[in-house]
Amino acid sequence: MTVTSPPATGILAARAASLDAADPLAPLRSRYLLPEDCVYLDGNSLGALPAAVPAALQDVVQRQWGTDLIRSWNTNDWWQAPLRVGDALGRLIGAAPGRTVAGDSTSVQLHNALTAAARLRPDRRLLVTDPAHFPTDLYAADSVARLHGLEVRLVPARALPAFLDEHGERVAVCSYGPVDYRTGELHDMAGLTQAVQAVGALALWDLCHAAGALPVALDDLGVDLAVGCGYKYLSGGPGAPAFLYVAERHQSSYDPALTGWNGHARPFDMRGSYTPADGMGRARIGTPAVLSLLTLEAALTAFDGVDMHAVRTKNQSLTGFFIDCVDALLDEREFECVTPRDPERRGAQVALRHDDAHSLIEALAERGVIGDMRAPNLLRFGFNSLYVSHRDALTAVRTLRDVVAQGAHRRERMRHTAAAT
Amino acid sequence: MTVTSPPATGILAARAASLDAADPLAPLRSRYLLPEDCVYLDGNSLGALPAAVPAALQDVVQRQWGTDLIRSWNTNDWWQAPLRVGDALGRLIGAAPGRTVAGDSTSVQLHNALTAAARLRPDRRLLVTDPAHFPTDLYAADSVARLHGLEVRLVPARALPAFLDEHGERVAVCSYGPVDYRTGELHDMAGLTQAVQAVGALALWDLCHAAGALPVALDDLGVDLAVGCGYKYLSGGPGAPAFLYVAERHQSSYDPALTGWNGHARPFDMRGSYTPADGMGRARIGTPAVLSLLTLEAALTAFDGVDMHAVRTKNQSLTGFFIDCVDALLDEREFECVTPRDPERRGAQVALRHDDAHSLIEALAERGVIGDMRAPNLLRFGFNSLYVSHRDALTAVRTLRDVVAQGAHRRERMRHTAAAT
Repeated sequence: MTVTSPPATGILAARAASLDAADPLAPLRSRYLLPEDCVYLDGNSLGALPAAVPAALQDVVQRQWGTDLIRSWNTNDWWQAPLRVGDALGRLIGAAPGRTVAGDSTSVQLHNALTAAARLRPDRRLLVTDPAHFPTDLYAADSVARLHGLEVRLVPARALPAFLDEHGERVAVCSYGPVDYRTGELHDMAGLTQAVQAVGALALWDLCHAAGALPVALDDLGVDLAVGCGYKYLSGGPGAPAFLYVAERHQSSYDPALTGWNGHARPFDMRGSYTPADGMGRARIGTPAVLSLLTLEAALTAFDGVDMHAVRTKNQSLTGFFIDCVDALLDEREFECVTPRDPERRGAQVALRHDDAHSLIEALAERGVIGDMRAPNLLRFGFNSLYVSHRDALTAVRTLRDVVAQGAHRRERMRHTAAAT
Repeated sequence: MTVTSPPATGILAARAASLDAADPLAPLRSRYLLPEDCVYLDGNSLGALPAAVPAALQDVVQRQWGTDLIRSWNTNDWWQAPLRVGDALGRLIGAAPGRTVAGDSTSVQLHNALTAAARLRPDRRLLVTDPAHFPTDLYAADSVARLHGLEVRLVPARALPAFLDEHGERVAVCSYGPVDYRTGELHDMAGLTQAVQAVGALALWDLCHAAGALPVALDDLGVDLAVGCGYKYLSGGPGAPAFLYVAERHQSSYDPALTGWNGHARPFDMRGSYTPADGMGRARIGTPAVLSLLTLEAALTAFDGVDMHAVRTKNQSLTGFFIDCVDALLDEREFECVTPRDPERRGAQVALRHDDAHSLIEALAERGVIGDMRAPNLLRFGFNSLYVSHRDALTAVRTLRDVVAQGAHRRERMRHTAAAT
């Protein structure tokens, strides 16, 4: 439909109000400091600032660093922070304590996890990953394959079971994400993990777009290895520490590429030869970025008492309502929804295809609606259940409709073209 | 001498006052927020809090993250921060812009630098390093050697030239630090670099104990690769980002183990295959820990207008005066100074050997004098020229004398023994 009648908007507004009024998670928005009049649908790229962070970080800087100085490694227990924050993350991804470490970047953790996987399956030469995986995942796969003489095979998630039927015995590790970072399509994490392990390979999951958005069950699914970042749905701050999960059964043989003094069994003996710590402590590498790590720790308190199933129910509702608004208010010949309409088959984001994606996202931002775009032509909107409302979803689509109606994105594009010449 | 006469202390106090009065760097202490009545001689482990940090970090958190949100990658130029902060670090280590990147931990940077070195010298099988090197340097050497089929040879710095005479043609890279982290002994960085390169090997220097303390001249010495941390003399905060220097001549062939999406030539094209950025940009890895990185950037402003030669002159004076105080006030049969007495042969720290090192350091801390110990028996004191005074040096040694005289360290030891049983 190209003509949008005011009644349609009114009906959607009433529905949004009703859904928000019935939303048990609505009060959680007060746990975040969002700018006034801002509809923030980019929490899948950088999560909003949790209200607990500023005071916590001020304490870390002024008292812990400034006053307690070096003693803080003990008195404020900086030393255990990577494992302590790891356990706090573990609660959100179905990992029992002692199976998750926080620190470094996803790229670094991926490199170590893939290396460890290759070493756990030394007689298998294939490293299988998703051609649509996030770039860093693919680069890490290439690097580790090069170092270990492995062969990378790019297999879409839906084709993985058939691939494993044929080549499974040669596969060391399968590296996938449960949510496609562009389209939001959800893959069958349980089924794929089972298929991978049925052929004796290891399942490595990148949870960047799942942690804090979906009820991940690493222990229950028997996942071998997982990584993820702290700055998307977990709102740990820009470039927040990543995390690594290692199944308990693999910990004693976890043998990564990068070994640092923090992973040593007796780090302060300052021994020249590396003896890994027992348990998950061996997954530590160098000195952790304490300010970023303790910011993430404070940020995670926003999830205190929050049921991840309720988070999931709400983002299914938010994304579904957003798609309904798109159907009602936007011209389907202009905007193609590339995210699955079945709520069980999508994560917490919706992507729309439009040739002017870049200009549209910029025009939206000028009007206080923040999404992002992924080249070449996707508008991407993320829905964090802890601070996004159905009203926000409607406002975003209404604003998008107005931008198109006013031709604002075309002026935006011309402005850019002019600036570039 | 076992008995200390009050006049000796009086003479030392007068000398401290005179040295401090003539110290051109004395006003820099106001650039740091130190607790009252604290003598902080552990800035070689965790630098004190720079006064510029709290406000800068609050702006990063509240305005850049909280309000500008995802747009800060552009509007607050988070995207260029690793190279921008790298250049700011470069000014302190004799590196022209475009040769230094800030980010990740020293362990991670070491791993990448050693891998890149091995790949630059593919026909050479020896990786040579110092048996007294910091543990993480040794673990990284072992890891990289294992991955590349190299052999690690442990050769003390003073024996390196002779070793190179004999085996030089087989050496890919020599990995050393200019300052022994335990004893403070200074190695001849210029001479060793020349000796290493004379046989066609690469010189990799770990500057953790040099950056911010010594006038390092990476470009002038023609050093191939260097790494270092941001949290010691640079006072970038606990676990502050590390840095990596790559000589301009090696940048186009810099080929590290860990490649992340931030090092890609066109990261936002989100390509599946890795094409490294031109220049130092390729030494980026994953998404940087922005809060820690911008804290380091603010911390480095404490060095604005500071001449590193003046920093060096002052810490030679501080360490020399400290050793004089030790000679005058402590019993040489109890305390052995293991740091070279020649000021040209030591860095910015002094280490004393004593069997009760642990208890002594704890007793000192209770009296407001913060140093640290390195197992099994070294008391270690670091002198940051930007905030330590000669008076501090004297106070430390006087307090140490008093602790010994009162037997406080023996009570401390007994308390620990009792607590442990």
